[in-house]
Amino acid sequence: MSVLSGRIPLRELSFFVMSESPETLEAFRHFREKMNDAILAAGNVTVNRFFALDNRCYEAGALPTKTKELLGLVASMVLRCDDCITYHLVRCREEGVNDAELYDAFAVALVVGGSIVIPHLRRAVARLEELPAP
Amino acid sequence: MSVLSGRIPLRELSFFVMSESPETLEAFRHFREKMNDAILAAGNVTVNRFFALDNRCYEAGALPTKTKELLGLVASMVLRCDDCITYHLVRCREEGVNDAELYDAFAVALVVGGSIVIPHLRRAVARLEELPAP
Amino acid sequence: MSVLSGRIPLRELSFFVMSESPETLEAFRHFREKMNDAILAAGNVTVNRFFALDNRCYEAGALPTKTKELLGLVASMVLRCDDCITYHLVRCREEGVNDAELYDAFAVALVVGGSIVIPHLRRAVARLEELPAP
Amino acid sequence: MSVLSGRIPLRELSFFVMSESPETLEAFRHFREKMNDAILAAGNVTVNRFFALDNRCYEAGALPTKTKELLGLVASMVLRCDDCITYHLVRCREEGVNDAELYDAFAVALVVGGSIVIPHLRRAVARLEELPAP
Amino acid sequence: MSVLSGRIPLRELSFFVMSESPETLEAFRHFREKMNDAILAAGNVTVNRFFALDNRCYEAGALPTKTKELLGLVASMVLRCDDCITYHLVRCREEGVNDAELYDAFAVALVVGGSIVIPHLRRAVARLEELPAP
Amino acid sequence: MSVLSGRIPLRELSFFVMSESPETLEAFRHFREKMNDAILAAGNVTVNRFFALDNRCYEAGALPTKTKELLGLVASMVLRCDDCITYHLVRCREEGVNDAELYDAFAVALVVGGSIVIPHLRRAVARLEELPAP
Repeated sequence: MSVLSGRIPLRELSFFVMSESPETLEAFRHFREKMNDAILAAGNVTVNRFFALDNRCYEAGALPTKTKELLGLVASMVLRCDDCITYHLVRCREEGVNDAELYDAFAVALVVGGSIVIPHLRRAVARLEELPAP
Repeated sequence: MSVLSGRIPLRELSFFVMSESPETLEAFRHFREKMNDAILAAGNVTVNRFFALDNRCYEAGALPTKTKELLGLVASMVLRCDDCITYHLVRCREEGVNDAELYDAFAVALVVGGSIVIPHLRRAVARLEELPAP
Repeated sequence: MSVLSGRIPLRELSFFVMSESPETLEAFRHFREKMNDAILAAGNVTVNRFFALDNRCYEAGALPTKTKELLGLVASMVLRCDDCITYHLVRCREEGVNDAELYDAFAVALVVGGSIVIPHLRRAVARLEELPAP
Repeated sequence: MSVLSGRIPLRELSFFVMSESPETLEAFRHFREKMNDAILAAGNVTVNRFFALDNRCYEAGALPTKTKELLGLVASMVLRCDDCITYHLVRCREEGVNDAELYDAFAVALVVGGSIVIPHLRRAVARLEELPAP
Repeated sequence: MSVLSGRIPLRELSFFVMSESPETLEAFRHFREKMNDAILAAGNVTVNRFFALDNRCYEAGALPTKTKELLGLVASMVLRCDDCITYHLVRCREEGVNDAELYDAFAVALVVGGSIVIPHLRRAVARLEELPAP
Repeated sequence: MSVLSGRIPLRELSFFVMSESPETLEAFRHFREKMNDAILAAGNVTVNRFFALDNRCYEAGALPTKTKELLGLVASMVLRCDDCITYHLVRCREEGVNDAELYDAFAVALVVGGSIVIPHLRRAVARLEELPAP
């Protein structure tokens, strides 16, 4: 009997679980911090300089940090990276970006990046529920 | 003692969990519907029109809906978006696409998009187990 | 005097030239054929088998070739490869795909892939001018 | 004698030509306008609505047009679309974005998108030479 | 009362769960094997030949398998596919790639692919904790 | 008379020209050097540090430069950047990579990245004709 004709029992299938979790943002921060420490501790000069550059590029310059964080958010949305989106959403809120401004940024990401961005938009909006309004 | 030389205890590591879950498709539908409602309720005109356009473009026209859903499926596979793949798999089944036709579409996605598509193909085939055959 | 403050004289700038060229499709075919021959002549077994597989996957199976070529076209558009788009446009025309059907496929590519697809759509429509209507 | 061992005479090779061309931006505008007209004249409702949405999403809202054009620029850079970059550079200049602000946006695109963005940055900076400073 | 103004209760939100899981690599292997079997059993010739080619291309040739696995790892990182990264990390360890060599490969992936690669690097380094050192 | 029904005269269409050009690699080097100078002269600290990091990461470390250049080549191929491919092909040849080794790297790029890589492979092989064998 072939694997498919017999159908794999549902209980044997492995999936990425979606579940109710108010701790998600906290878990993300914990994992992010711990692994960043592990990466930097490995001591590869190029990797470590890249991490430093990544922090530096959102500091206020000719453009204010708020605008730079919006740029980082939209770049992360069109490249479709949930962790990067979460990070920039947190930073945008800290910089005082309100809901209407966020949705304007979401609209640009959606039009430039297409419907393939929508699942990430759904998760971004769900993340917003975990963040204090500005 | 460095973080790496000491090794992080496995029980402290955070990962995306893979587990047995027959409820996944239902959870996906629930989350998708709830967040779509939240997004549309925010009232951004561009975002809302984009969502309307996204529905409209799979309606029968010069090409039948079945073909359009296959186009959406292959586009989602080469762009590697699991949620989009799940959505179009459900719709393909509703339009009567059978296993052999699906695998023909999978083959095009695999050859055009490369082995990087394979993990998404594995999850797509697992999803099929949750869907009634046409 | 710095490079920028002095401005680079326009006549010294190198760009990809855009020009009037009725021979483009012919040039594409000539280059494609010559380089494919060179690649296959190199004798790498994996590369050569991949090329064979690439031809094979558009042959009629559970889905007709016409549908498969439309799948290849949309996949090429969302992945934004002009040469691949040109190739599948030629094949779609040979399979009898008419303008209305092509625009239905363009619409799916545009909505899934976003405005980033538009420059490729413009070049695709220009290419159509070089191809006999079905 | 094999194609490779005999070496293809250089004069027979077809490449994308890079040449001195002060008319490039003008040629881009001409081609863009002509093909947009052709696409809209085809009358596909989804395609035409998408083009309308693409214009709409950069109009001033909660975020000013200047910020939205910077978002469009960075999104285009990380997705690596030269025509989209050219378009948003022109619009940024029209909105008064100066060199220091542009380079801040370039820096975000470079760090988020990686060295793969550099060739597009080179062409963007060359394009700037064709545009009046704000 | 609108969906957003009322805020969705956190306990109702569905997210990808991140949790402590020493069994992850094992679960990945189990799922991968089971689904590969299901895919091959479906009998699509193009799909099955592609899977054969995917195995073949990492066999020692002009380049040793160790180098080819590093190529596969970096390609998977810049294309940002966690499952592919996991697979090639396991294979790199089996081929004797040590930590310093891995971080050199990570550095190339990071510089070429940008900060968007970082979340995948974090998960890659966490995966390393599950693998025996070479 | 509509734009499409009347057909745009071919001589009015603007395309990227493909032509015979033995000077291409030289033109690439000239443009690359000139624009890099212009970019660095602009004085944005993040951008300039990124360029420094980009050079640094291919220097010999735990992995030899030859391997790192092959990693850069395959990363550039799956991300489909012709200029990056040209750059790494030149560097690979300088590091003594021979034809058989290059094709092994091409094979990995092709299998991981899919047929969408083929047009870039064609241009890469054409570029090889301009480079002295190792």
